[in-house]
Amino acid sequence: MLSYNGQTPELEQWSFTETSFNPLAQGKCESVMSLGNGYMGLRSATEEAYIGGTRNLFVNGTFNRFDELEVTELPNAADVTQIELLVDGRRFSLETGDTADYERTLNLRDAELTRSFVWRSPDGKRIRFEFRRFVSKDDLHLIGMKLRMTPLDEGITLRLTSGINAQAANSGSQHFHEGEKRIFDKKYLQLVQTTTESKVDFVLSALHRFLIDGHPFEPALQMEIERRKMEMAYRMELKAGQTLELHKLVQVHTSRDADVEAAGDLEKLRAHSLEALKKAESAGYDGLFERHRQAWAEIWSRYRVEIESAHRFDLLALRFAIYHMTVMTPVHDRRMGIGAKGLSGEGYKGHSFWDTEIFILPFFIYSEPSVARTLLEYRYLGLEGARKKAEENGFRGAMYPWEVAWPSDGEVTPVWGAVDVVTGKQTKIWSGFIEQHITADIAYAVWHYYKASGDQRFMDDYGYEMIFDTAVFWASRLEWNEEASRYEINGVIGPDEYKEHVDNNAFTNYMAHFNLLLAIQYYDELKDRDPQLLERLESKLGLERGPQEWREKADAIYLPQPDGRGIIAQDDTYLQKQELDLTPYKSQAKVGTLFQDYSLDQVNEMQVSKQADILMLFYLLENRFAPELKRANYDYYEPKTLHDSSLSFSTHSILASDFDDKKLAYELFRRAAEIDLGPHEHSSDAGIHAASLGGIWQCVVMGFAGIRMLDGALHVHPKMPDAWERLSFPLFWKGTKLQFNVTKERMEISADTQEEIELVIYGKKMSFQGRLQFELMHI
Amino acid sequence: MLSYNGQTPELEQWSFTETSFNPLAQGKCESVMSLGNGYMGLRSATEEAYIGGTRNLFVNGTFNRFDELEVTELPNAADVTQIELLVDGRRFSLETGDTADYERTLNLRDAELTRSFVWRSPDGKRIRFEFRRFVSKDDLHLIGMKLRMTPLDEGITLRLTSGINAQAANSGSQHFHEGEKRIFDKKYLQLVQTTTESKVDFVLSALHRFLIDGHPFEPALQMEIERRKMEMAYRMELKAGQTLELHKLVQVHTSRDADVEAAGDLEKLRAHSLEALKKAESAGYDGLFERHRQAWAEIWSRYRVEIESAHRFDLLALRFAIYHMTVMTPVHDRRMGIGAKGLSGEGYKGHSFWDTEIFILPFFIYSEPSVARTLLEYRYLGLEGARKKAEENGFRGAMYPWEVAWPSDGEVTPVWGAVDVVTGKQTKIWSGFIEQHITADIAYAVWHYYKASGDQRFMDDYGYEMIFDTAVFWASRLEWNEEASRYEINGVIGPDEYKEHVDNNAFTNYMAHFNLLLAIQYYDELKDRDPQLLERLESKLGLERGPQEWREKADAIYLPQPDGRGIIAQDDTYLQKQELDLTPYKSQAKVGTLFQDYSLDQVNEMQVSKQADILMLFYLLENRFAPELKRANYDYYEPKTLHDSSLSFSTHSILASDFDDKKLAYELFRRAAEIDLGPHEHSSDAGIHAASLGGIWQCVVMGFAGIRMLDGALHVHPKMPDAWERLSFPLFWKGTKLQFNVTKERMEISADTQEEIELVIYGKKMSFQGRLQFELMHI
Repeated sequence: MLSYNGQTPELEQWSFTETSFNPLAQGKCESVMSLGNGYMGLRSATEEAYIGGTRNLFVNGTFNRFDELEVTELPNAADVTQIELLVDGRRFSLETGDTADYERTLNLRDAELTRSFVWRSPDGKRIRFEFRRFVSKDDLHLIGMKLRMTPLDEGITLRLTSGINAQAANSGSQHFHEGEKRIFDKKYLQLVQTTTESKVDFVLSALHRFLIDGHPFEPALQMEIERRKMEMAYRMELKAGQTLELHKLVQVHTSRDADVEAAGDLEKLRAHSLEALKKAESAGYDGLFERHRQAWAEIWSRYRVEIESAHRFDLLALRFAIYHMTVMTPVHDRRMGIGAKGLSGEGYKGHSFWDTEIFILPFFIYSEPSVARTLLEYRYLGLEGARKKAEENGFRGAMYPWEVAWPSDGEVTPVWGAVDVVTGKQTKIWSGFIEQHITADIAYAVWHYYKASGDQRFMDDYGYEMIFDTAVFWASRLEWNEEASRYEINGVIGPDEYKEHVDNNAFTNYMAHFNLLLAIQYYDELKDRDPQLLERLESKLGLERGPQEWREKADAIYLPQPDGRGIIAQDDTYLQKQELDLTPYKSQAKVGTLFQDYSLDQVNEMQVSKQADILMLFYLLENRFAPELKRANYDYYEPKTLHDSSLSFSTHSILASDFDDKKLAYELFRRAAEIDLGPHEHSSDAGIHAASLGGIWQCVVMGFAGIRMLDGALHVHPKMPDAWERLSFPLFWKGTKLQFNVTKERMEISADTQEEIELVIYGKKMSFQGRLQFELMHI
Repeated sequence: MLSYNGQTPELEQWSFTETSFNPLAQGKCESVMSLGNGYMGLRSATEEAYIGGTRNLFVNGTFNRFDELEVTELPNAADVTQIELLVDGRRFSLETGDTADYERTLNLRDAELTRSFVWRSPDGKRIRFEFRRFVSKDDLHLIGMKLRMTPLDEGITLRLTSGINAQAANSGSQHFHEGEKRIFDKKYLQLVQTTTESKVDFVLSALHRFLIDGHPFEPALQMEIERRKMEMAYRMELKAGQTLELHKLVQVHTSRDADVEAAGDLEKLRAHSLEALKKAESAGYDGLFERHRQAWAEIWSRYRVEIESAHRFDLLALRFAIYHMTVMTPVHDRRMGIGAKGLSGEGYKGHSFWDTEIFILPFFIYSEPSVARTLLEYRYLGLEGARKKAEENGFRGAMYPWEVAWPSDGEVTPVWGAVDVVTGKQTKIWSGFIEQHITADIAYAVWHYYKASGDQRFMDDYGYEMIFDTAVFWASRLEWNEEASRYEINGVIGPDEYKEHVDNNAFTNYMAHFNLLLAIQYYDELKDRDPQLLERLESKLGLERGPQEWREKADAIYLPQPDGRGIIAQDDTYLQKQELDLTPYKSQAKVGTLFQDYSLDQVNEMQVSKQADILMLFYLLENRFAPELKRANYDYYEPKTLHDSSLSFSTHSILASDFDDKKLAYELFRRAAEIDLGPHEHSSDAGIHAASLGGIWQCVVMGFAGIRMLDGALHVHPKMPDAWERLSFPLFWKGTKLQFNVTKERMEISADTQEEIELVIYGKKMSFQGRLQFELMHI
């Protein structure tokens, strides 16, 4: 269905194309071709409507809660993309008539969605269609759409209906009051709506402009205002060979806009929106698009990656990942995070998970540290919610929510999930209650950012507080086991969510231990370096007995050790559970098929993992575990892992690089890269997999280029796939931008300053100025 | 599009058929073929989904308010009708492939919806389809659906998905908490939902049963529970010639159910619903349908009407009217009313208007008085809301809301309507504030019922209180005009809603006057007949100065009189307003087209009427106006009337009968009959026109048969259309069921008792026992 060839030679590895329309799998292109600019995300539903299509427009950080029984989520704003076309009185649809030369393409370079084809109506008239769409990276509030239609054989009568439709909801949950609809000058549509609970105002303004053969033209107009909906219906006649062009421009604002002074005053915001729309009108579609294109050119020059591979898909996949990380990330505003589906679908309700810190953040740490900082500041703001959660659970310090929306809120993980085949009820989701490792993951991310960026100011302002307060949580969370004379963490879910209520999940225990050690270390450092800051934090966080308690407890945490076979138990009971042959489930493209046969309660009693668990630990705390141990555990756990989480393949791939199985690493990279972009028709229905996209980048940079921050040092240990001739990418290290260039034979690193760069190549410390070259070791 | 020929010879004048499917006009058949039983109404959307389709399931009297900015409305319950069929992996749709022998039929006799056709898939395989559906009149909580599919040429692989979908909303406004979804025994689906504000619990239970060639069969099953949705996906192979049969049975209950003891306890109601479903399962689709058919046979024997006309459409239209009045009317529960669109669409939000009392009630008064009584008891319960409204508006007594939902609530008319072409804003709807005649209309209806039924008990329990308290309202509402030395009613809307803020709308003034006179009359009567009751009412309603005030004010009300031409001004300024040639608007099938060119403010300043206004007065208070006056006013107002209200044609038709223009009366009857059932593709999109259906019956009985209750006497003055050979109908009069039989030459009236029947034939008092025949006067 998808072609990975470039739409044009110059778009080779810059674009991918849907070559025939499949009404049963619309979710695929809607998600993987979605547009956005960090401020908002627009799902790429087709202009004409089809059964099974899903329209979504999300504005980051505008959460709302439908009722007290649901959790807060990103509301689906009014739709502006639907355009109904009646050709000679019949609704245009690709399901009728015949379609030739069909192409729907996402151009990653220009962040432009295009669609073109020749449609022969059921009456036999051929019409050429071309659609274009962008969500401006230059003006965060602007959506541009263009339609060109040319009847090829005979004239047609056209009725074109387009407007703003606020009947949209989140799978039925309506987040907006109906609001006010107004049409100015029979031309500018404006919808003003407010979310029901969080009281965020949305203002959407839209206009239509028509040209025939390039000349402005005003078709007959009928205006309609219905419930939650306003439409302009235009009627016109087109002669054969005439080209109709429609430009639709839309401005989107909310009362949360930090960049708009008028945002706090609804009347001013309305006026501002209308004015912005009129300015956009003056600039014109093509001018606006050009500014957008330039903004993206700048992004790609910043994130320039190159791969020369026998498989041209590889670079496309990496660019796809970077594209989506760019469109989903609110680089403009630290009050909001990254949703697990970005802004491309309703899945996971726009909530942020550890996906951000562990999977996506590394891309920004090394590619644009200021964005990484912004994302961590969102977690700093989240301390409020984390403290709330700790208190509600009877703990101290900051217990980060498994899922977060408003940073000041606590836990927002929904409680009920898919059907339990045994009971016929919905399965209870325990993650919000007991998936606790996220608190350590965030501390880890703070450390990671700090060590790679050297951003001391961040640590002083936010980082130390986060690390101390998470350590306070863990100290309060640990449970003393008198018999074993050790601290344990019982009744949790680790990264493997198919094991609930387990004791001593190795990942959780090790990461909590890491978090405590980090707090101890920074406490000691601050005592010397900045006692005033320490004093301030001590009094704010109540750290009186902190460091001592941390030390005592860290020393006595139970850290599961390898058994005779070198296997570390994922938790206390995993290795004693029955095994199940997963072959029938692993061979299926769809995830979660196991639950057609077993309930989660039953799976809980089997050695079946959703995703990398202990293996993730090996990656994060790499130098605490020997390569042989990693291999042995990989071999043990891989057959038991369904990879039902998109976080799984990339972790396995990096680990395979770590234990020097290049072939396996590359295979797993490809599987990770195919989660969204691959041929599976339904994998992305609920939205793209944000963490997996970060994982793709990590497979390349952490895996194949072997980049790793260990104990504050930059390690390099390249393991290029055999299929690759060359890999090149930028990497920020302590404020310096390095450019890495790896070929089959050698690696070259160049810095953009003349400062001395220290790094560790193949385990050996080195330093250089300007440029470094070395030959690759061959495995 | 619609054929009015019977589906079979025996269904001649009992059924109408859609002969080809038009995806651009789905609303038509969805509405006019909608099913129901007074308890619930099910819009007849097709099983397979199409863009532009609207699914509705309403349960009477379960109002909810989405937020404080909207008005309460009948919520759209979860959908059970959608069934997705994937044939060989492609979605079955009539928009693809070819369709032959297409028929969708509403069988009015059996209240059964059927649809059949042979579909040739895009792969060229022919499959015969047959769908059947009913909403049981025997078990008010039961919906039955049947699907038969036979591949004719080759075998097929079928994936059939069906369940309960609660993502439905009212044009985007969601009225339900998500609720609980459960599948019992991999077979029985149950959804429990509660409305967000009114806290009405809904329980829907559903099951599927499959047969192949009549033998039970269990296809491979996959269960899915998603957000607000639960589905069963069945997979099977069908060989050529094999017939698959699916029976889907659904039970619908709410906590408002008066007939279910368990209704007040949700856990018990859930169990009851499941049990009822299992009982239905035992009875089987065919058995359940047979009970339903019998229940309708009984209804039709009760409401037996016959017309022998040159136009077979006429009887069909009358039966269509009676069918819909039956499916929409909550005969089972006096706590709820009749919506202006019945239960067939979202239009008018399920609210009741004067439509019930003035247009629909007469049918029940004369065809099933107990139902008329139930409907008036709903208005009695509505006194609570009416008193609230009076108080809020600074008046005394009972000021009935223009639109009512919960009887205890006051006004629920929405405030904003369609777009104003001049300002581009939504037009303000003033009816809820100033369309006040409804209070007198209800008093009129009480009197009408009382006089026709002789139901003294009703009057003692409810009727007097309603008439007194509405008179109290009018007495407080009247405004003294010192200059003219008279009482006026200023700043109102009359029946013609294109004239807002008018003074002394003749209809309103005359009806208020009537209401006051009625109260005076009954006060005087009660003083003699039942002083105790009067005392009770006096103390309850505070009538101390009532009768005297009524008398004084009634005597001094300004009642507009005919001018030199015999024209009564609709209001103080109507006749001075500019005229507009309405020809271009009247020739359009669509209503409201005037507003494409003019705003309501502009129309307000023209002699343009939406509907019969003064002419309606001539009908209600018939014997106060001479026939010549009626004709003169008809001739004056008709060219100025757009008939944009469905209440208009029938009133004009009856009036034409009254002034003896048989041809015109018949023409107007046809136009009234065509509002829903006629060829206009979009007239019924928002639902059928309940009042118009009552109007159709009134055209026949009040117009053509010339039946009228005047001063408590039954008047008969037949004016049969030339096209009609015979008309026969039942009529209750003071507890006796009369059967009228009218031919071109004579009328025969037979009674089902031997009591003396008094009536007025052609203005002459008569009485008879058993049977009366008389020759018709020819006009």
